This record gives sequence, structure tokens and C-alpha cells, in this order.
Amino acid sequence: MSHYTLSNIDFQASRTELHDLLGLTGAEISFNVLPAGVSVPFVHAHAHNEEIYIVLEGAGKLYIDGEELSLKAGDCFRIAPEGERCISAAEDKPIRFLCIQVRAGSLEGFTMTDGIMSEKKPSWL
Amino acid sequence: MSHYTLSNIDFQASRTELHDLLGLTGAEISFNVLPAGVSVPFVHAHAHNEEIYIVLEGAGKLYIDGEELSLKAGDCFRIAPEGERCISAAEDKPIRFLCIQVRAGSLEGFTMTDGIMSEKKPSWL
Repeated sequence: MSHYTLSNIDFQASRTELHDLLGLTGAEISFNVLPAGVSVPFVHAHAHNEEIYIVLEGAGKLYIDGEELSLKAGDCFRIAPEGERCISAAEDKPIRFLCIQVRAGSLEGFTMTDGIMSEKKPSWL
Repeated sequence: MSHYTLSNIDFQASRTELHDLLGLTGAEISFNVLPAGVSVPFVHAHAHNEEIYIVLEGAGKLYIDGEELSLKAGDCFRIAPEGERCISAAEDKPIRFLCIQVRAGSLEGFTMTDGIMSEKKPSWL
């Protein structure tokens, strides 16, 4: 059985969700584009999941628990399940962002404490 | 207590890790740039974590369990913990990619089955 799934996506599509596309079991990941002046039309929180947002391009605004912040490319933020959030594009610019949804508290080891070195080599090493 | 953490990162840095920067509890997320001709110098697998890679820019190569594939911007792939993997930039182009590490099998509900609608409104709605 193959240990990978692969797809190619269009970063400019209004929304692409990877969970079903790649058969993810530990995350939902979505690519999102909001045109200038457009907001997600509601505020939401989560029961169990933390969300990590990464602003890839453009500018926008974040509502979080009554506070309002400006967003620009390179901004990355984590919101705990309880956080009440809403994202909007700026009035004059679209915003392109990634949203990663994972179960809060689910990660144990990672990188050096979960990685296993292999003796295998690709043709280029 | 605030329900969010925020940082701004440089997408062109050779590597930026978000776990400690944002206090993530369900994922490690890294931004990576490999210059043209440069490879991660080893093959690795994981004990418990699935990895999702997203090629943001450039081109490269993926070694996975003895198979070798070409990579280009927009390619997204999931590798199960057991998969033996290695990523390289192309000979003539750098590769910029995101790697998301999560515990395999940890996600239960998501989006519609984990989201909670709020009656709150940002000033722009």
C-alpha cells in the first residue's frame, strides 16, 4: 500500500479543502481567497480544534473576541478553540490565506522526537 | 486570557518553525526554502505523525519509498508516518514549501462538525 497521496491545486481558487482530497487524518487544511471588501459572513468558534491561519498574500482584518486587528502577508496566528473569530479582506485588497484545523492538544512528539532516520538514499544523494 | 497568538514571518527565510513561536498544541508547521540543487541530506519517516507538504513556489523532487517524483508549485501531498521521504530542490530552481506535521488519526470533527456559530459581529458586518 502506498504511503502517500498527491494533488495539485490552484492557489487562486476561492476555496480548496485538502482533507478529503488527500485523505488527511490529523488535519483539515483550506486555501482561501476573499476579494477586496469581502468578509467571512459570520463569527465562529470551535468545540475541540485549534486553527492556525497563515496570510500568504494581500491584506485584511481579524476580529477575535471583540478585538479587531489588521492583517498583512506573513502574519501567522493560532486561535484556541474558544476564540470567536472572523476574517475579512481589506477594503482595497484581496486576502489569500491558509487555514489549518487540528485537534487542540493532540500533538505529542514532533520533528526530532517523532522522526525516524532511514538508511535509504534517493538517486541524488 | 487571550485566545490567540500572532507573529509575522519572512517567507524567504531558509526555515521558520511555528510550534514554539505560536504555542501550537496540535501541529508543527514549518516554512522551508531549499536553494537550487540542494536536498534535505537524509531520508526520514515518523513514529506517529503524518506530514502534509505544500509546494508554494519553485520546483523540486520527492523521494518516497523508492519512487522519485517531480514537484512543482501547487503540489500538495500527505505522507503517512511510515513513508520514507526526502525532498530536494530542482537542479536549476529553488523550492519553497510548507510542511505540516500532525498526529495521524487525531482529527475527529472539523469545519461543520466542530465549528460553533456565534452571534457576535465585527464592526464591518
